[in-house]
Amino acid sequence: MLKNILFFATCLMVVHLNAQTHPFLFLNKQDARTLLQATKSNESISVLKASFVETKKEVDEYVGKEVDVPIPKDPAGGYTHDKHKANYMLMFNAGILYNITGETKYALLVKNMLLKYAVLNPTLKKHPQSTSPFSGHLFWQSLNDANWMVYTGLAYDLVYNYLSADERKKIEIGAFKPEVDYFTIDLKDWYDRLHNHSVWACAGVGIIGLATNNKDYVDMALYGTDKKGKVGFIAQMDNLFSPDGYYTEGPYYTRYAILPYMVFANALENANPKLKIFEHRNSILQKALITCLQLTNINGSFFPLNDALKEKDFTSNELVTAIDIARNRYGNDNGLLTVAKKQNRVSLDKGGLLISNALKSNKIENVFPYKSIESTDGVLGNEGGLSVLRNGSNENLSSLVFKYASQGLGHGHFDRLSINVFDKGNEILQDYGSARFIGIEQKFGGRYLNENAQYAAQTIAHNTLVQDETSHFGGDIELGQQYHADKVFSDFTNSNVQVVSAVDKNAYKGTELKRTLFLLDSIEGRKYIIDLFTSNSNTVHQFDLPFHYNGQVMSTNFKYATPKTLETMGKHDGYEFLWKEAEAEMNQGIAQFTFLNKDKFYTISTLTNDATNIYLTRIGANDPNFNLRSETSIVFRKTKQSPVFLSVVEMNGFYDTRNEFSYDSYANVKEIKILQQDEKTTVFKIVLKNTTLLFALSNKSVDQKEKHDVTISSEHIKWEGPYYFKKMNN
Amino acid sequence: MLKNILFFATCLMVVHLNAQTHPFLFLNKQDARTLLQATKSNESISVLKASFVETKKEVDEYVGKEVDVPIPKDPAGGYTHDKHKANYMLMFNAGILYNITGETKYALLVKNMLLKYAVLNPTLKKHPQSTSPFSGHLFWQSLNDANWMVYTGLAYDLVYNYLSADERKKIEIGAFKPEVDYFTIDLKDWYDRLHNHSVWACAGVGIIGLATNNKDYVDMALYGTDKKGKVGFIAQMDNLFSPDGYYTEGPYYTRYAILPYMVFANALENANPKLKIFEHRNSILQKALITCLQLTNINGSFFPLNDALKEKDFTSNELVTAIDIARNRYGNDNGLLTVAKKQNRVSLDKGGLLISNALKSNKIENVFPYKSIESTDGVLGNEGGLSVLRNGSNENLSSLVFKYASQGLGHGHFDRLSINVFDKGNEILQDYGSARFIGIEQKFGGRYLNENAQYAAQTIAHNTLVQDETSHFGGDIELGQQYHADKVFSDFTNSNVQVVSAVDKNAYKGTELKRTLFLLDSIEGRKYIIDLFTSNSNTVHQFDLPFHYNGQVMSTNFKYATPKTLETMGKHDGYEFLWKEAEAEMNQGIAQFTFLNKDKFYTISTLTNDATNIYLTRIGANDPNFNLRSETSIVFRKTKQSPVFLSVVEMNGFYDTRNEFSYDSYANVKEIKILQQDEKTTVFKIVLKNTTLLFALSNKSVDQKEKHDVTISSEHIKWEGPYYFKKMNN
Repeated sequence: MLKNILFFATCLMVVHLNAQTHPFLFLNKQDARTLLQATKSNESISVLKASFVETKKEVDEYVGKEVDVPIPKDPAGGYTHDKHKANYMLMFNAGILYNITGETKYALLVKNMLLKYAVLNPTLKKHPQSTSPFSGHLFWQSLNDANWMVYTGLAYDLVYNYLSADERKKIEIGAFKPEVDYFTIDLKDWYDRLHNHSVWACAGVGIIGLATNNKDYVDMALYGTDKKGKVGFIAQMDNLFSPDGYYTEGPYYTRYAILPYMVFANALENANPKLKIFEHRNSILQKALITCLQLTNINGSFFPLNDALKEKDFTSNELVTAIDIARNRYGNDNGLLTVAKKQNRVSLDKGGLLISNALKSNKIENVFPYKSIESTDGVLGNEGGLSVLRNGSNENLSSLVFKYASQGLGHGHFDRLSINVFDKGNEILQDYGSARFIGIEQKFGGRYLNENAQYAAQTIAHNTLVQDETSHFGGDIELGQQYHADKVFSDFTNSNVQVVSAVDKNAYKGTELKRTLFLLDSIEGRKYIIDLFTSNSNTVHQFDLPFHYNGQVMSTNFKYATPKTLETMGKHDGYEFLWKEAEAEMNQGIAQFTFLNKDKFYTISTLTNDATNIYLTRIGANDPNFNLRSETSIVFRKTKQSPVFLSVVEMNGFYDTRNEFSYDSYANVKEIKILQQDEKTTVFKIVLKNTTLLFALSNKSVDQKEKHDVTISSEHIKWEGPYYFKKMNN
Repeated sequence: MLKNILFFATCLMVVHLNAQTHPFLFLNKQDARTLLQATKSNESISVLKASFVETKKEVDEYVGKEVDVPIPKDPAGGYTHDKHKANYMLMFNAGILYNITGETKYALLVKNMLLKYAVLNPTLKKHPQSTSPFSGHLFWQSLNDANWMVYTGLAYDLVYNYLSADERKKIEIGAFKPEVDYFTIDLKDWYDRLHNHSVWACAGVGIIGLATNNKDYVDMALYGTDKKGKVGFIAQMDNLFSPDGYYTEGPYYTRYAILPYMVFANALENANPKLKIFEHRNSILQKALITCLQLTNINGSFFPLNDALKEKDFTSNELVTAIDIARNRYGNDNGLLTVAKKQNRVSLDKGGLLISNALKSNKIENVFPYKSIESTDGVLGNEGGLSVLRNGSNENLSSLVFKYASQGLGHGHFDRLSINVFDKGNEILQDYGSARFIGIEQKFGGRYLNENAQYAAQTIAHNTLVQDETSHFGGDIELGQQYHADKVFSDFTNSNVQVVSAVDKNAYKGTELKRTLFLLDSIEGRKYIIDLFTSNSNTVHQFDLPFHYNGQVMSTNFKYATPKTLETMGKHDGYEFLWKEAEAEMNQGIAQFTFLNKDKFYTISTLTNDATNIYLTRIGANDPNFNLRSETSIVFRKTKQSPVFLSVVEMNGFYDTRNEFSYDSYANVKEIKILQQDEKTTVFKIVLKNTTLLFALSNKSVDQKEKHDVTISSEHIKWEGPYYFKKMNN
């Protein structure tokens, strides 16, 4: 078994550790000398030089001052929390500066702080503000203590040479051992998990192990507390990403997890390059990084899948370090420089210098090389996945995100077959992301708010189908974790006609959900998304398909009533948070709804031949602490055994406020018609102003070679494979 | 009388006109030659060159094609409206290109179009979509026809030399005369007004007069249809601005009016420099421009006073031309280059070239030189005004806008003594601006929406006091137009302690409203606004003071109830548009309300010793077409004869999402106390964490020399002048 082979290789490595010269984990003496030269260079200011000056400025504020290492008391956002967080970054940065500049004042700062932790840590018990079984000592949750271990371990290596043997002993026994013991003994079950928090924990224990030359620690880091390899860092590399680098919790969490992966792998590579850790599992860390970057909007923000905060983007500190290490270890660019350019700072290491030098070229593109991509989910790549259909370039990039993945662990949402749409850098059809104000004490100590589980994770908060006002899997995470959706087929070969289809058979017992999406470009000069969402049930249900649009209502082609007092859409599963601002009923033709997002119009046209109730909603009900953002959706409701939701999202026109013109502000969609819908085939047409689009889908087979034909009112349509598309002039 | 002197001087000028060589109004042959050189320059791309290329690209699309001059049919946003609008810009730009490049294809394009208008215009009657008595012919409103005259008149001058005598005659009689006659005969009453729309009309008639050498037109342009000078362009310069250049409708309208002022003045200057039109009324046009620029946020958007659209900023086309002309005529900079840098394009004239050359320097600041300013309102400067208190620089600029002006004509709002607060480029306490989607046909043809008068103009939509749920002057514009508020005193000498006070005695019969504002800096490292709003009534009333905050609720120090169904705040005067999202009651201490705007916290602390009801509201009720934005306010209500509203707006802390830290997210205000409040004196203190601020105001006299003293619990406070301020450690 590969894991066992690696296990023994690592045992050898640890023996070699004795010969290491400190520092060697984040940077070594040679690196430090090169960095010093770069900061002294007289040429026009480089990003590295600016980052160095910035770091120096931050650290110099504390040099020569009494350092505060307070007794832990506050939750996130409170003083002691923020202080300990600031302390570990300060120690890490001061340690780097000590090596680059050679000035002992920086080492002294680290030493003093480490010695204070050596006194404090042995006295600590469960944090007073803890609300979970995984309490930290220094912080309210163990995860933050793991962060502390990673940075403090690196800082220790950076000032190792400055410390006396006695000081080292004090620190290793006082500052580090209580933390390592707490994680590997008291929190053993938490530590021995395959989960991003535990990646931090293993990296923390491993970095401390390498820094203190403690074989026991390193072994537990790599292979779990029992050192058998079923858990621990290597298993985390093997089990937390799909083969193409998708992390089941979503890109927001990849961002967070990638740092300990990269930093610990980097330290391991320095300690023993024979381990070839960066090549492990077909360079899985590189794949994880690139996949994470592909799953961003052009402004760099991560697609807000699962519990994601929208304000986070790829300029976050974690990704600065991760990109710098990746550049050093994997060499090639892959668009990393476009990201580094926006980050506009580098870590003070070898990779940071490489990036900084590369950034001196003015030939670096402004936008990451986004493309249509698919990522499988699950360690074997067989638990559904994610498709991102894209067209347009630079500012005109459009991204249709289609999620048919598994639950995504504890941070997963009940969002099977949901879509998000980005256009021109804006969220057009949005996912709420998570309800949390991280780092703000007033908002429940910066933790996930109750409204996160009660609203943000519920199905109605996503652009997907809800049956009987109940979330997928009845909102049961354990149940949801057992199942995933599956891709049926996809085809990106024609960039003007991209298609993907996926099915879910488990979100609702007895109901099969299937969604097929086309992303079209250059149709009468516009972009269109065609959205066919079918549900196949054994009985009549109420089905709701919400589109969480982002913008101001411009017009509708249907009459609606607006109530004199606002009431909620429902009583549970997230419906209780939605005010019902308007309602309408239709039973023929198409309902059209146009909204304006910044300077562009978007129209949703949906077929209403099945009797359809339409609701306009706004978040805000039953939110006594104003924890949720006030956002809107249009919900299409059909109560039927197996309704078909067939909609077109049209990206039409442009609003030029400077010249007070609006161009093409009306939809081109004139008619939507299902021509055939049975077990074998679905045929439908969409009539635009001057063009008719004809679609046919093979419902039973996606075999590329299989031939299909169907006759619609004397017209014969023939095709091979899963779908047919034809564009005709009217 | 000055006006009459000018009148005769102009008569002389018109006689001189005969000798003019075309073109001479927007640019002349010499200018054209210089511009050609500049566009041919090999040096790195200049703004002028880029503007030239851009203009050429736009125009070249139409060269050699059949030009469409459709029969007027649609309102704003519709095809014929947009086409005629595009046409006059196309003629103007093609005329410029003809002169710069010498290529006759551009002149031909203009000629063909002019000849089509010469056929169309004599056939036109009142526009079919007109909704006002001031209908246009080519457009739904006469104002747009005036725009057409300005640009088409300039275009005519630009291609004059290319036209045969016969063509000239056809155009002058067919295209121009019907428009001029319509304005000066049919719409005589509208034309002969002192109003920004009529500035466009006079400029249009005047430019056509100059271009066609028609003395009659020029005289009517300068002095009104009766040529007596009580109206017309000169009277508009004399009467539409206050002596320091404030335009009573607000900066959004200055932006719009400044173009015809500058363009016609420029043409007059070219025709007869002896008129010294740019020096007229102490260079009023320069003052108007600079004042308009000062009344912007650092992102360039105009303060949304009165009927203003927030998406407009100083990069609008009108201000590009205005700034280029001003630079040429007034020479000095005054920060114009900072604006031109953001505009990143210039008009193709002498001023545009000057600006473009100046922009080659990389020493131009990024931010306009904003400062605390005061503008009087009214032609004599005695109708109240506007104070803008500012501190901080660049991105950290804070602006407190205090409006105690007159009604502001038809676009005025009932907003006496209202404030707006901007900080870090964001609107913190906002004015709704106007309810309008200009240029969007679906939204009432782009016109002002009904909700503009019904909500946006009402008092409750502003950060000022509302008595008995009724707007100022009962919402009667005619009545409002008769009165203005008045400044009591102001003092900006200490940039850390700026103060202004104003009073209104007419908004509510029998009630005197008085507001005194301090903008403080560097108090415990933070900025504070102290807001003392008193009302002096002869009987008990209900008083509401709303703060239209922009952000997410973070925390309150008071308990509130949130209802299960939403109802409106009231039934009329704008209250019917507000949902009541929460309510609370307090009768002692202070109410504190913290919200987060982007990355900064703001706390409103208000004294509630008078029983105070507190409401959190959201716009959206009774808005069947979703014409309003969903925005929020906190309303403090006191029902009393003469209540005092004493509040502190604290700008506290910073939310660092990258590092997940929040700094100083709690308010420092601990106590607010009124120590004395009588006819003669108001004394109050504000206790912060470590500092106490003591304020005293002389209510009866603002004489700088007058001495005041008061004894508060054995402490003697003495001062001279209208106010006293002292900062003490706790």
